[in-house]
Amino acid sequence: MSDGDEAGSPKRLYLEDIFVGQRFSSVSHAVSAEEITDFARQFDPQPFHLGEETAKGTFFGALAASGWHTAALTMRLNLQGGLPIAGGIIGAGGEITWPAPLRPGDVIHVESEITDIVPSRSRPDRAVVTALSRTLNQRGEAIQILKAKIVVFRRP
Amino acid sequence: MSDGDEAGSPKRLYLEDIFVGQRFSSVSHAVSAEEITDFARQFDPQPFHLGEETAKGTFFGALAASGWHTAALTMRLNLQGGLPIAGGIIGAGGEITWPAPLRPGDVIHVESEITDIVPSRSRPDRAVVTALSRTLNQRGEAIQILKAKIVVFRRP
Repeated sequence: MSDGDEAGSPKRLYLEDIFVGQRFSSVSHAVSAEEITDFARQFDPQPFHLGEETAKGTFFGALAASGWHTAALTMRLNLQGGLPIAGGIIGAGGEITWPAPLRPGDVIHVESEITDIVPSRSRPDRAVVTALSRTLNQRGEAIQILKAKIVVFRRP
Repeated sequence: MSDGDEAGSPKRLYLEDIFVGQRFSSVSHAVSAEEITDFARQFDPQPFHLGEETAKGTFFGALAASGWHTAALTMRLNLQGGLPIAGGIIGAGGEITWPAPLRPGDVIHVESEITDIVPSRSRPDRAVVTALSRTLNQRGEAIQILKAKIVVFRRP
């Protein structure tokens, strides 16, 4: 098991270090139009994600990122110290909403809170931890709310 | 509003065409190791997603795709006719689980079913439709189950 320190955070947390109510905040990332359209061409090629011109007159009115792009960027921010879990961030699933669109030029960061810890009955070395991650833009508006269930291990 | 026909499906469905219990099946896609590691380098750079060598001894034991990569590939398959909604697939959110890992060489497709339709009270031109999308590998194992809420419009 790698200890997940690749992402450069000074300290990674084991289950013993985690508690309900614990909060984390990630670094920020400025999202460019090119990133948005690059992701869309690969995975979500819809007019409102592909360019400013093609987005006009659509549901979003102007270029907006794919929700799955927002999810992927949130993952990267959480790996870059936003959610410093030893062994890495291993997701079992979660609930996701996108209350507002991610627009080009937005500067986003992620604020996370531990909301639940359920020790595994069959495997005493781990627990399923619920982390509520809010991805916020530069105006503090949530562009994504993710309630993720992640596997966290005890100190070896 | 674009009618979303870019993805090449012959017929796109409006709210009037949608019913609970309706089923769809996407085309298939063979997932390469290179796709998995490309996505991981961009968005989820953890040892178990970055290469066969770095994946050894980790939770996954061998190279496995990021769950967010699986989600993005599922979106693309649904756009390629897997979920032929007029106006495109506009997600408000959903619940996602990854019951089994996506491995290099897997051939995946998506089977979707409409499970709920809730007409908007404030906007009579649309409804929130729940689509249950199961992403299956070549052995029929679900590698992702997504219950997505999407916005579907009436025929103009």
